[in-house]
Amino acid sequence: MRIAVDALGGDNAPEEVVAGAVGAAKRLPRDEILLVGDPGTIGASLGSDSPSNVSVRAAGAAVGMDEEPSTALRRRPDASVAVAAGMVRDGEADALFSAGSTGATVAAALLRIGRLKGCRRPAIATVLPFPSPAILLDAGATVSCRPQDLLNFAILGAVFAERYFGLEGAARVGLVNVGEEPGKGTDLAKEAHALISASGVRFVGNVEGRDVGRGVADVLVTDGFTGNVVLKTAEGVAREILGMVRSAMTGSLVSKLAAGVLRPRLVRVRDRVDPENYGGSYLLGVRGPVVIGHGNSRARGVENAIVGISRTGGGLTAALEDALGSVHARQVEGAS
Amino acid sequence: MRIAVDALGGDNAPEEVVAGAVGAAKRLPRDEILLVGDPGTIGASLGSDSPSNVSVRAAGAAVGMDEEPSTALRRRPDASVAVAAGMVRDGEADALFSAGSTGATVAAALLRIGRLKGCRRPAIATVLPFPSPAILLDAGATVSCRPQDLLNFAILGAVFAERYFGLEGAARVGLVNVGEEPGKGTDLAKEAHALISASGVRFVGNVEGRDVGRGVADVLVTDGFTGNVVLKTAEGVAREILGMVRSAMTGSLVSKLAAGVLRPRLVRVRDRVDPENYGGSYLLGVRGPVVIGHGNSRARGVENAIVGISRTGGGLTAALEDALGSVHARQVEGAS
Repeated sequence: MRIAVDALGGDNAPEEVVAGAVGAAKRLPRDEILLVGDPGTIGASLGSDSPSNVSVRAAGAAVGMDEEPSTALRRRPDASVAVAAGMVRDGEADALFSAGSTGATVAAALLRIGRLKGCRRPAIATVLPFPSPAILLDAGATVSCRPQDLLNFAILGAVFAERYFGLEGAARVGLVNVGEEPGKGTDLAKEAHALISASGVRFVGNVEGRDVGRGVADVLVTDGFTGNVVLKTAEGVAREILGMVRSAMTGSLVSKLAAGVLRPRLVRVRDRVDPENYGGSYLLGVRGPVVIGHGNSRARGVENAIVGISRTGGGLTAALEDALGSVHARQVEGAS
Repeated sequence: MRIAVDALGGDNAPEEVVAGAVGAAKRLPRDEILLVGDPGTIGASLGSDSPSNVSVRAAGAAVGMDEEPSTALRRRPDASVAVAAGMVRDGEADALFSAGSTGATVAAALLRIGRLKGCRRPAIATVLPFPSPAILLDAGATVSCRPQDLLNFAILGAVFAERYFGLEGAARVGLVNVGEEPGKGTDLAKEAHALISASGVRFVGNVEGRDVGRGVADVLVTDGFTGNVVLKTAEGVAREILGMVRSAMTGSLVSKLAAGVLRPRLVRVRDRVDPENYGGSYLLGVRGPVVIGHGNSRARGVENAIVGISRTGGGLTAALEDALGSVHARQVEGAS
């Protein structure tokens, strides 16, 4: 697989991005890593011992976190994420990774790579890791959704979760809602419930906030507004609670000793909660694997994300398009 | 204050509700607790040593968790929560507490007690306790909101938070959104941002999920769909992370010893996160303090909620109505 990496996107670019890409290239000797950005800047981070499956492709500066994405892409078509997306469009790369502005990556993917057939709007699929991992989508690509968008997210999420988790059977899809009964929620939630129920997706119905991450579904479908707030709340609360536990352990000498014994165990809990171990979010609904890293990704996060693309991304686009097509064909049949 | 308590509502009614009410009555000798429900059932839980400021008011069975609230209230106007709400309407009680069906309590309050002037729809205000407490509203009363509803929630939440937390200055109000910039989010979020900005409320702007509960605002405003999912996700994630920490501490003899030393400290963390310590959610926007306990409240949670009503509820309704009136007057002035 040839993976185009926006070397300039992210708070810690280019150093950490380049280091992560090099780490991934070493773990993926049969893949090619294409670092996109200013060759001088990348070269300085790359040093002299870069693996032979890493190469550089020239591009302009990254789109900043504070820039309006589509305006920035229009003004600077050579921005690193835009060039990387163009490489996927032109068949020079099979997938794209960026830890830069999420909005810019989504915009570049839509403008340069384009949507899957039958998919009006894309979704960002993210792993909610604790305690039972599930794929949450949309985590923020499409803040205002129609019911058909949520059906599409259910289809895309199911295919993705099967591959990502290596499930034996079909992925179980739940709809995030304020109650378990089918009549609950907004009009959007009610109509999406009806569409997904009739779609042939393995649908477990509504899932309440309290059951997010408790293993009742492999895929949690919601609009990009709710999904973004839920994901960030879950990450934030997990971090805060672990911080409270850590503070509780620093009061006296005795508790410090006890904490010394327990620390390795708590580090394992923290690692399960740490997004860096889950390698980025997938933009589903565009014609190619596009993966978005946390803005503050360090080398380890970038490396895990790129390795993940190599494992999950092959054939993903075709599988997603097939699944959309077959559910939509069933919808048309059902309606006629 | 005279507080009508739905003695039959909740998973652990009547025993735990009655026990909590008795506990509260002992702590509030100048208040009156009116237990509403079947006198025989309540009497059996009450025993012989009930304080003199506890009395019983006859009513029929509670509305079940699985009943459609307004249908149930229409068919059984003597349901305990409906009778308790009627007592507030008729001036026989000053406030209402129920740990029964949230939907039924909201419906009974709207039907029997009625809305505050200028408030089209009510909101459920809940304390998000960790690590910096904030009031989140709406936690589920109004799943589909208009921008003006969110402005009303901002006004109601600010008045409530000032009293609940005993703030010196005006409460800081934030709007839950997917980004910090004013142009972010759905049309609802954008229009609400503009309305709240112009309202005179002390507005700190958009608050992302990651900052929920981090002390950037005293009040977090959102629609009832997002609020319900966020609140339940936050509670669920907190519980799961503490469970992971607990499991991490039970592996070997050494870690068990260490955990023995740390357990009291972790119990304090758990207590800060436990909703039972925060005494129920307030339904704001109706003409009287209406407080909704967790369905699985035990005596301690009921007691804390009733004591909270006595401390926070006096004069609350008038203060909320004043605040709505003065902001709306300013809106009309601004428009003319």
